[in-house]
Amino acid sequence: MSYPNSVTLEKIKAAATSLNGIVNRTPLIGSKTLSQILGAGIWLKLENLQYTASFKERGAYIKLASLTEAERKRGVIAMSAGNHAQGVAYQAKRLGIPATIVMPSNTPVTKVENTRLLGADVILSGETLDEARKAAEARQRSHNLTFVHPFDDADIIAGQGTVGLEMLEDQPGLEVLVVPVGGGGLIAGIATAAKALHPDIEVIGVETELYPCLYQGLRNLPYSGRGISIAEGIAVRQPGDLTLAIARDKVDDVVLVSEQSIEHAVTMMIEIEKMVVEGAGAAGLAAVLQHNDRFQGRRIGVVACGGNIDSRLLSQILMRALVRQGRMVRLRLEIPDQPGQLAKVTTLLGQLDANIIEVHHQRFFYDIPAKATEVDMVLEVRNTGHARQLVSTLTSHGYGARLLDNSSKG
Amino acid sequence: MSYPNSVTLEKIKAAATSLNGIVNRTPLIGSKTLSQILGAGIWLKLENLQYTASFKERGAYIKLASLTEAERKRGVIAMSAGNHAQGVAYQAKRLGIPATIVMPSNTPVTKVENTRLLGADVILSGETLDEARKAAEARQRSHNLTFVHPFDDADIIAGQGTVGLEMLEDQPGLEVLVVPVGGGGLIAGIATAAKALHPDIEVIGVETELYPCLYQGLRNLPYSGRGISIAEGIAVRQPGDLTLAIARDKVDDVVLVSEQSIEHAVTMMIEIEKMVVEGAGAAGLAAVLQHNDRFQGRRIGVVACGGNIDSRLLSQILMRALVRQGRMVRLRLEIPDQPGQLAKVTTLLGQLDANIIEVHHQRFFYDIPAKATEVDMVLEVRNTGHARQLVSTLTSHGYGARLLDNSSKG
Repeated sequence: MSYPNSVTLEKIKAAATSLNGIVNRTPLIGSKTLSQILGAGIWLKLENLQYTASFKERGAYIKLASLTEAERKRGVIAMSAGNHAQGVAYQAKRLGIPATIVMPSNTPVTKVENTRLLGADVILSGETLDEARKAAEARQRSHNLTFVHPFDDADIIAGQGTVGLEMLEDQPGLEVLVVPVGGGGLIAGIATAAKALHPDIEVIGVETELYPCLYQGLRNLPYSGRGISIAEGIAVRQPGDLTLAIARDKVDDVVLVSEQSIEHAVTMMIEIEKMVVEGAGAAGLAAVLQHNDRFQGRRIGVVACGGNIDSRLLSQILMRALVRQGRMVRLRLEIPDQPGQLAKVTTLLGQLDANIIEVHHQRFFYDIPAKATEVDMVLEVRNTGHARQLVSTLTSHGYGARLLDNSSKG
Repeated sequence: MSYPNSVTLEKIKAAATSLNGIVNRTPLIGSKTLSQILGAGIWLKLENLQYTASFKERGAYIKLASLTEAERKRGVIAMSAGNHAQGVAYQAKRLGIPATIVMPSNTPVTKVENTRLLGADVILSGETLDEARKAAEARQRSHNLTFVHPFDDADIIAGQGTVGLEMLEDQPGLEVLVVPVGGGGLIAGIATAAKALHPDIEVIGVETELYPCLYQGLRNLPYSGRGISIAEGIAVRQPGDLTLAIARDKVDDVVLVSEQSIEHAVTMMIEIEKMVVEGAGAAGLAAVLQHNDRFQGRRIGVVACGGNIDSRLLSQILMRALVRQGRMVRLRLEIPDQPGQLAKVTTLLGQLDANIIEVHHQRFFYDIPAKATEVDMVLEVRNTGHARQLVSTLTSHGYGARLLDNSSKG
């Protein structure tokens, strides 16, 4: 690679000065509970508490503030259905720069509305991100706009690097920084700042197994990213040229995490830290969970990079966690096909402190005697021991009863 | 009332000094988005970020630290199935004081386990809170323990008052403090501190309509609290004698909020602030929402007093919010009872960008011609306009289609 690396500690420090009063200086909080669970000192950098709920507005501001008066007047364009869109829209409005955001036409209305409310002109175009990008590039040329790249830009990288500066200002003793990686802008900036300040610090990137782009890029492997990830903020198929070059130089390693680890980490952030993070925002914690050995006993700074998670997804994640924890079980009951039997069995379940969430009563399709019927129930119970106790009590009352496998069980 | 009020600003300041390094100095964050929505300056005091996720550990520590050596050795007892239990258990362990917590026997296992993990001896006794209280009092006498009251105690009140000190240190310009009220310990402490520092400040209590105990106490009305509240942390039937006496002197008003407002406020904290709060913790924001007129244009400090909310409840609240926002609708379809019809209609819905969440196919019970069948679906849509568009397109394709009322709709 022959890209000149124009990102330096000085440039990141200058970005920090520019961002003073412009973005929130988010807290770096030590978590006693996570530290106990994970056997390491855990500090969380809460970028989910930015105004647009992600770090993206840092780089966006630095980029926009670097434009000439003429460029500002003509305006900027970006392609994103996510946090970059909101970061650019918000900071462009602050600077009085007209911003156009191109999103794929199937983007959820909430995201479109949120970006419009921040003052941007949103254009829906293309079925995929690729088509939307092409539409954005065409419009950039035809309207002579400045394209604001989500990661492969020295100003963007310098802006994101201020996250690392702040972490080391607040906790100079951090030994490892764990940073989620999409296209690599955040980790390129953080690694540049951190290695300049503390050459011995370790900087570890985290990607979902579905999109291992920096992992592959560093190893000269073909890019294979595909599929639907819970962490759409880091579901990027290919890193940038500049971000890859910086990562070769400054990033110690990239670890991959499963979708299940990410889901687990989102739940831990909710239940333990009382914090809402999106999948990408939980990826750092997921790495410390899944690759726990390599982090034992060390002081770890984890970047919780964003909090924009869809309410329905979050709701599902919380319910699936209850299943995983054994607090929600599926029970299949065989009962005589006579009036009053369902009432009897539900009364019994009530006496046993099981909370009935759903009942599926189905007479036709199961492989049972014609004079019996099967009922599937979803029950809230205290734990797996309680569930087994229910089965044995129901059995001793003459009902066929068994627990069904939880398909989402780890 | 002849209770001597032993809670003073000096005592609260002393409590603050004692608590230094013992509890988190939680952030008071200004919310740009909530301020815009509510037409007032909104600052949130995030007591959900304490270690046990509520303010309760403040008062618990001050009370426990006030005990004599002999009292500490004999140990303490408390009755609570909630945040007080965890606050006492946690601070007692820190001070090396044996703690017994009595909980009603139907307390969810998670709460029992969490309290045990904090080092307390948990005794399950009694069907109701009243019976559990009696069991705790009997054991207190028989074992000569010190009873740690959840609110009606000068040390407890002084500890909780430090919340108010911190808010006014961080934002001396606050004009109104909005404080959730259970038994009144938190508001008694905050009002004492705030009125001493800023005599013109307004201190407003918030209760759920179901448990208006301080509202009734201040007006000499009989106590009528009953029912199941989403805000179980403030579901208290009767205030304390001392807390009521202080409130008569220092609290300007108590407003009541509906369960629906509390639910709405929990959702706003998740979606906008990326913060998990329990029902009681959202009550302050609910008050500014529901009684918006009286808060217009003022600088409001809202106490988000706790974050311990059950995952299943939170999951339900998020889904109900989608229904309220028109993003989740129920559609009843009448289709010919022939093979392939369901496939046709679901294909059509997919083309219209509606996401099918549930399908209930029922042939027997609806009042329709024998050759047709009805299908109820739960669909995720962009908004109510999108839902209406689905109905008209389905109708134009010859299907009977109508939206069903959302029972949880406000």
